[in-house]
Amino acid sequence: MDKAPQLTTLCYIEHDDKYLMLHRVKKENDINKDKYIGIGGHFEYGESPDECLLREAREETGLTLTDYRARAIITFVYGENVVEYMHLYTATGFEGEILECDEGELVWIEKDRVDELDIWEGDLIFFDLLNKDTEFFSLKLIYDTDDRLIKAILNGKEYGRDER
Amino acid sequence: MDKAPQLTTLCYIEHDDKYLMLHRVKKENDINKDKYIGIGGHFEYGESPDECLLREAREETGLTLTDYRARAIITFVYGENVVEYMHLYTATGFEGEILECDEGELVWIEKDRVDELDIWEGDLIFFDLLNKDTEFFSLKLIYDTDDRLIKAILNGKEYGRDER
Repeated sequence: MDKAPQLTTLCYIEHDDKYLMLHRVKKENDINKDKYIGIGGHFEYGESPDECLLREAREETGLTLTDYRARAIITFVYGENVVEYMHLYTATGFEGEILECDEGELVWIEKDRVDELDIWEGDLIFFDLLNKDTEFFSLKLIYDTDDRLIKAILNGKEYGRDER
Repeated sequence: MDKAPQLTTLCYIEHDDKYLMLHRVKKENDINKDKYIGIGGHFEYGESPDECLLREAREETGLTLTDYRARAIITFVYGENVVEYMHLYTATGFEGEILECDEGELVWIEKDRVDELDIWEGDLIFFDLLNKDTEFFSLKLIYDTDDRLIKAILNGKEYGRDER
């Protein structure tokens, strides 16, 4: 059992009021299997968060990000044995052509239709904060191993269901 | 050899144009031995950065932080075997009385005299950015094992000596 925390980036590329989403249908044993998430992945040894972001963007989409912004740190807790620190970014500038991705299908989704997709319940919280242009925030999302969101804590305060 | 990256918080509490600094004179085998740094420490398993911040502030100073702000992520690389992600905060609100700290002596230092202290060379870079109220940034600092700063990278771009 490896309880070392994981370090990742998660990025939503924006264009024409759409987000570039990755429909994770290609990998087995994927904690995100069949869900729609942003692009990104694990830090390589010694990388800064933005170095990881740029590398993952190139690898997963073929795009070179030219304008991006750190938006939040998401502490993702899944059951007893998974803790992941997701460095959340949005990007509005990029160059190149979108290539096929090994990890799923890349699709542009209108921002106001993201909630119709199969996404993690807690992602709706950060999409709402991103769309409100909230300054850099810390969001802790605690899930059970049936993918149910048990608790959300925004900047140290519990975030109630009525606020979502 | 443990190459797992370290996760820490580093916080500068502000009051009357001074920073609360910790003069690390009490612990042997301290990578920060004799230097002045902020308060903070390692994440406990599952903590969010702000949970770690609040706990460390209480443990090291006796203070409860009531107003704080995430300012940067510092990727600290020291030789071949140390990579630490330091979540940098400033805090302007706190309650309680300052207690003695096991790890060093707590002293209030005027902001414009910080550069007279024995601090890490790269810390001058982030103090400058903090004092300019720069929005959330990513700073990678690469040191050799003689504590010399080899390279500084701010938001993906090399930060030259002439800019310091």
